[in-house]
Amino acid sequence: MAKIEKISPLAPKGFPVMPQIDGVLFATAATGMKYKGRDDLLCAAFPDGATVAGVLTLSRTASAPVDFCRANLATGQKARALLVNAGNSNAFTGKAGDAAMRSTVMTLAENMGCAAEEIYVSSTGVIGEVLSADQINKHLSATVDALSPGGWRDAAGAILTTDTFVKGATRTVLLDGTEVTINGFAKGSGMIAPDMATMLGYIFTDADLSQDVLQSLLKCTADQSFNAITVDSDTSTSDTVLAFATGKSGVGERIRSVDDPLLAAYRAAFLDVMQDLAHQVVRDGEGAHKFIEVRVSGAEDNRAAKVIAMSIANSPLVKTAIAGEDANWGRIVMAVGKAGEAADRDSLEILIGGQKVAAEGMAVPGYDEAACTAHLKGQNIDLSVDVGIGSGTATVWTCDLTHDYISINADYRS
Amino acid sequence: MAKIEKISPLAPKGFPVMPQIDGVLFATAATGMKYKGRDDLLCAAFPDGATVAGVLTLSRTASAPVDFCRANLATGQKARALLVNAGNSNAFTGKAGDAAMRSTVMTLAENMGCAAEEIYVSSTGVIGEVLSADQINKHLSATVDALSPGGWRDAAGAILTTDTFVKGATRTVLLDGTEVTINGFAKGSGMIAPDMATMLGYIFTDADLSQDVLQSLLKCTADQSFNAITVDSDTSTSDTVLAFATGKSGVGERIRSVDDPLLAAYRAAFLDVMQDLAHQVVRDGEGAHKFIEVRVSGAEDNRAAKVIAMSIANSPLVKTAIAGEDANWGRIVMAVGKAGEAADRDSLEILIGGQKVAAEGMAVPGYDEAACTAHLKGQNIDLSVDVGIGSGTATVWTCDLTHDYISINADYRS
Repeated sequence: MAKIEKISPLAPKGFPVMPQIDGVLFATAATGMKYKGRDDLLCAAFPDGATVAGVLTLSRTASAPVDFCRANLATGQKARALLVNAGNSNAFTGKAGDAAMRSTVMTLAENMGCAAEEIYVSSTGVIGEVLSADQINKHLSATVDALSPGGWRDAAGAILTTDTFVKGATRTVLLDGTEVTINGFAKGSGMIAPDMATMLGYIFTDADLSQDVLQSLLKCTADQSFNAITVDSDTSTSDTVLAFATGKSGVGERIRSVDDPLLAAYRAAFLDVMQDLAHQVVRDGEGAHKFIEVRVSGAEDNRAAKVIAMSIANSPLVKTAIAGEDANWGRIVMAVGKAGEAADRDSLEILIGGQKVAAEGMAVPGYDEAACTAHLKGQNIDLSVDVGIGSGTATVWTCDLTHDYISINADYRS
Repeated sequence: MAKIEKISPLAPKGFPVMPQIDGVLFATAATGMKYKGRDDLLCAAFPDGATVAGVLTLSRTASAPVDFCRANLATGQKARALLVNAGNSNAFTGKAGDAAMRSTVMTLAENMGCAAEEIYVSSTGVIGEVLSADQINKHLSATVDALSPGGWRDAAGAILTTDTFVKGATRTVLLDGTEVTINGFAKGSGMIAPDMATMLGYIFTDADLSQDVLQSLLKCTADQSFNAITVDSDTSTSDTVLAFATGKSGVGERIRSVDDPLLAAYRAAFLDVMQDLAHQVVRDGEGAHKFIEVRVSGAEDNRAAKVIAMSIANSPLVKTAIAGEDANWGRIVMAVGKAGEAADRDSLEILIGGQKVAAEGMAVPGYDEAACTAHLKGQNIDLSVDVGIGSGTATVWTCDLTHDYISINADYRS
């Protein structure tokens, strides 16, 4: 597991106890390619018939592993294995990087006795250095031999880079009358944050869901979790969230649509796991001292609400004001204005910590600034904005922008 | 003039010697509304027949003065006066703020003997506090009496807020065989940067240009100057650039289009003044230690090139890497990718200080990292990116993101 020097003040109390998911096996190894004294290679295996879904970075300079996952998802084949390495993202490494990735996939396919199209792969770490296939390949035989149930915390730890804590989440829920499990882990401490802080997330479940249902479920819950967070507005070339459904619970097979009422409780639990992990990524945001929830209502539609919420969450001026525990709502007005979406300046409302500080186009006379400041001195900050146009809503999460962010990023690589 | 505590390390050597522009008069006053011991109110008067053009913030929560200028521009009337106050932006102050602004305009109109539609007004400073009309009105009679030629530096100084130096630029150029002058001044140390760092710019010329030609000229040069800079990606509710043409030179009247070859040299000089001022705003960017030029080529079109260039210039990770003097070109790849515009990962080229560090989708083997680092240790940083798709180009300017930015903005208002 990764050595962690200094844990984020916003970290949860600990890693959750994760129930087994029948047929999901893990093994980890230490390649030494970048980190010393910790495992940095994760291999996961899935039973016959496991379906897979993915949400991948929209970057126009996506890494070779992202392109590979996208192509495999398009085949509609089942998933047999997942391979993740930490320390080198193999991004922007041209044809040599692509060849190195394919070499590791072929080696794993031989050891697993499966096809390359059944393997999913992620790399996270420094950009622009070709992955050493040999350093990974030489471990794959022993790693495949070591595959075994359990070991969730070790698995989650092997994929970390600059993270300060291991991120896991789990829920059990009834699906069609049977208890099923959803486990997940993630890494990331910025959208990309430093080159090594790509966001990766993996969800595992024993529900028996078709690829189509799993893909729809992953996409719609990602929009309210991993796609609703921002640390610094920067997007990695390698961001990847994958979901694997083993089907071993024997329930779920008759669900044909993500909107099937039979799926409702499961869908809520799935969203819970996704949000829990996404929030942990924000809580590990580089230099973060405060966790900020931004709720927008009254927008033209939900899309507009999200654009406005992200404009607030990405504003350096809003984020530095919160770092400074300053109830500077004028900066929120500015961020609403620059979003470019319809907003009625003269009916805009802003609440900080539940208290209305601005309404009808101006400050609320005599609002309690001391109560506001007291809220801002806490670790969890709530901002609500109603833009007075329609009924669109959105919620996103971010962290404050601090001196520690500058320190971490102004001298990361050198 | 504003008292300046600590001057930006990127400031130019001094304020330029500005030639007179016949018929342009200035007077300044100290209202004491926010600043002590300095003038914070500027009044400018223009001769009969002066045309006016404007480029105003796209913010959806624009301030009352911005709305007022926009409405006056639409009337097509001539301009007689400009009124600017520093210390209170009168933004997000509802109907009371609007009434206060109209009161100052009516008072100035009476003193000048002109119509309200012939007056342009800007306010810069804190958001959310209603402007005190009385504090301005009581100075207007004496200020109008004091209007006189010259005093460019005092005029430019009276509009400053958090700026660390006074920003002016001037060019003389032949227009249709006669020498004409273009003077300008500006304020701003962020797009909005703290609430008080709205960007304002004013251009004055004795050319005889119709409102249509002046407006086209201002718009196209703004796209390559004030609209091609970013400090922190935040956009003010009050950003305003206005141009006034007195016509006193007696030349220019026969020009009917901004593309008229007769205007070419003048247009270039006008762009020079606009870029000079815009660069000074970046050089006064909050906490800036380095001035960064980002050139993008090979994009689908010029629009796409500008989106990519702005994505690089706004990336906190690129800006912190430069603050850290780190040749971390992987972050530039990331910023190109997240822009969402077409880019060919495998033919992308990146140059730092003129040296090619990445090409054909990967690092240039054996590039001189020491030379790169030496360039990054300087004050003027050049980044060039070719995205390998088409022939679109764009150039934008920004500054680095430093601890000083956090210090300035995390405890500004309180």
